[in-house]
Amino acid sequence: MDINTYMLTLGKQARAASRQLAAASTEAKNTALLAMASEIRKRAASLLEANARDLNAAREAGLDAAMIDRLTLTAKGVEAIATGLEQVAALPDPVGEITDVKRRPSGIQVGKMRVPLGVIGIIYEARPNVTADAAALCLKSGNAAILRGGKEALHCNQAIADCVRAGLKAAGLPERAVQVVDTTDRAAVGALITMPEFVDVIVPRGGKGLIERISREARVPVIKHLDGNCHVYVDDEADPAKIVPIVENAKTQRYGTCNTTESLLVSRTVADLCLPAIGQMLASKGVEMRGCAESLALLRDAGIDNDKLVAATEQDWSEEYLAPIIAIRIVDGLDEAIEHINTYSSGHTEAIITENYTSAMRFLREVDSASVMINASTRFADGFEYGLGAEIGISTDKIHARGPVGLEGLTSQKWIVFGNGEIRR
Amino acid sequence: MDINTYMLTLGKQARAASRQLAAASTEAKNTALLAMASEIRKRAASLLEANARDLNAAREAGLDAAMIDRLTLTAKGVEAIATGLEQVAALPDPVGEITDVKRRPSGIQVGKMRVPLGVIGIIYEARPNVTADAAALCLKSGNAAILRGGKEALHCNQAIADCVRAGLKAAGLPERAVQVVDTTDRAAVGALITMPEFVDVIVPRGGKGLIERISREARVPVIKHLDGNCHVYVDDEADPAKIVPIVENAKTQRYGTCNTTESLLVSRTVADLCLPAIGQMLASKGVEMRGCAESLALLRDAGIDNDKLVAATEQDWSEEYLAPIIAIRIVDGLDEAIEHINTYSSGHTEAIITENYTSAMRFLREVDSASVMINASTRFADGFEYGLGAEIGISTDKIHARGPVGLEGLTSQKWIVFGNGEIRR
Repeated sequence: MDINTYMLTLGKQARAASRQLAAASTEAKNTALLAMASEIRKRAASLLEANARDLNAAREAGLDAAMIDRLTLTAKGVEAIATGLEQVAALPDPVGEITDVKRRPSGIQVGKMRVPLGVIGIIYEARPNVTADAAALCLKSGNAAILRGGKEALHCNQAIADCVRAGLKAAGLPERAVQVVDTTDRAAVGALITMPEFVDVIVPRGGKGLIERISREARVPVIKHLDGNCHVYVDDEADPAKIVPIVENAKTQRYGTCNTTESLLVSRTVADLCLPAIGQMLASKGVEMRGCAESLALLRDAGIDNDKLVAATEQDWSEEYLAPIIAIRIVDGLDEAIEHINTYSSGHTEAIITENYTSAMRFLREVDSASVMINASTRFADGFEYGLGAEIGISTDKIHARGPVGLEGLTSQKWIVFGNGEIRR
Repeated sequence: MDINTYMLTLGKQARAASRQLAAASTEAKNTALLAMASEIRKRAASLLEANARDLNAAREAGLDAAMIDRLTLTAKGVEAIATGLEQVAALPDPVGEITDVKRRPSGIQVGKMRVPLGVIGIIYEARPNVTADAAALCLKSGNAAILRGGKEALHCNQAIADCVRAGLKAAGLPERAVQVVDTTDRAAVGALITMPEFVDVIVPRGGKGLIERISREARVPVIKHLDGNCHVYVDDEADPAKIVPIVENAKTQRYGTCNTTESLLVSRTVADLCLPAIGQMLASKGVEMRGCAESLALLRDAGIDNDKLVAATEQDWSEEYLAPIIAIRIVDGLDEAIEHINTYSSGHTEAIITENYTSAMRFLREVDSASVMINASTRFADGFEYGLGAEIGISTDKIHARGPVGLEGLTSQKWIVFGNGEIRR
């Protein structure tokens, strides 16, 4: 079978399974998730064995250490997969929720019902746990899934897929509700993202290169996450006690996450008061500061080691470092801060530190990003911290899902009408 | 200036204006809308004159009567435009609405704020009133708009755009918040739908050809409406008193609208009881019936004139007739009805006629269309009937907006966090 025919077959099977899943009871879905968790635990040894085969192939192919690290599944990792499945089982089922029912003058009652999107294509790279996580979120939200993992993880993904299918079968749900693409041919991705008749949305999880390519070529909506160039803005009326702790947490708690702050904006009126302490904290953590001329002068005056200070270029304002580097700019108050953020930000997450009510509310309203915060670390932009219970990704799009995407982001709402024989006049 | 440079300039100006509009007060937006209405009334004579120039050109170009009809603006039409602007001013402002705020264990309070999408591109055909309607809906929802009307209506669109600009100016809002593309070059559409950096969503309004072309070529999300192949399903336990009135209204109230029923499904157990009366009603209205063999036999037995009866082909189940024609199929109960609809429907609107609670609830949940109704005419699928107050279109997509799209469909929700110095542990 050629690759396009194979993918169309998967698509048709997924569409058929999605109809059954949309009507599946919460109990059946939860039974399947718990059965999957039990299968994962039961087959731990064979999962580790499959992973070892992938790792051997990866080492032979000369993959780098970071890739090997992402690819590696440990016994603890297997347990985490099983626990993750149980956690999704414990989440409320979003499907079928009826809201906003209103009686209209015609007599009909109109409302909305939350329903699955249908078929979700997930394209990811080396991490094998995504196979189980994504399958669980799609299943719980009533969607069929077609999973296309990285070729490096093929054996382990197939072994996990076996557990998933066993769980579906145990619950009497169609095994084709979750299908793992069984080929490493890259053309499979091209086919998956261009069959709108069978796939309703694509969620790519991986590096920027992957996501850009998929967004460019897809003929299906893509829930995507590109850069996380997040900002903290220290306003004129910032509480001094909150500044250093928030900047420290936002920049240095973890360097490699998308909700880590990459740019710091400081209002001119408070720069000489707060930048020295911020600079000392950052320097003590080994963070390189790429500053505007004004901020560099202040940081030098405060005795910050010159080898931690670099003159920022225009490029720095747009950069997602994912590293111990921060861009620093002194701005002329709230308006310039908002203007800077709306110009350079990737639209992920921004925070203001202020005690001024009007500045806080203007920042909330006027900053055009997926998450906007007052007096809190940007690191909170996360599905678990927001209470979604799970996260399939963080969207920097504006249409459909924005910010952390949980189960609800994998559903849509249709209109429902309760009538009693009404006709339109 | 070449066409791409021109469109990029419009895009940049729209993006800049959108920042101001996002922060604009409800009062300023309403002042602008009321001032626009007043300008429209004041300049009625020059609008009609501009329309006359378009009509002359259209007649010279040999456009057909239907097109001339859509293009024609009457004094009553001018008044309707002004009234429409006033109605949008009277609607609640969706922007800034804060919902779902919850305190999290970390101490932060997380919620959602409704915000404009940013810049909306509207592409439409001959009707000049769309210029004012679309401008009003985009403005009220805080979005900048780039409007690209049909070349046939260029003079009238420009005259309306002058009124819109005057209204924006009177309210102190940026005149570039609404820009009308000032060229009839078709390349302008190609440019408008491929600049995601400046345009956040495209709403095409027009024939299927236009919408298909735009969906295929756009690099920006499209809120689109394709076919309206709507169904009425008469269930085993349908109330006999509701059947004929609903089918009559759904099929014959207006033939050319997208929420008109095109296919009738009847459960076998009630077919011989209800089809004769349905057939007589349809025949008396001059509606051609394209039936399955079984339904044709019943209709013939009931004495329906043979020249109104045609054997349905497979193609008929997918057809949007927009004409006095209906497809009729006898099905084996609810399961087959749902299966038929989910196979052939365009996902617009479907109705079940039943007194059985479980059948009604299963139909609601399992039918995968934008509007699903119990015991009501499909003709109710409409922004005004649903209480949206206005309608920019009806979406048959699943992502973002589904069904009738009002002001809310032109917004999205961002996450907001109210903190008090919290950092992530």
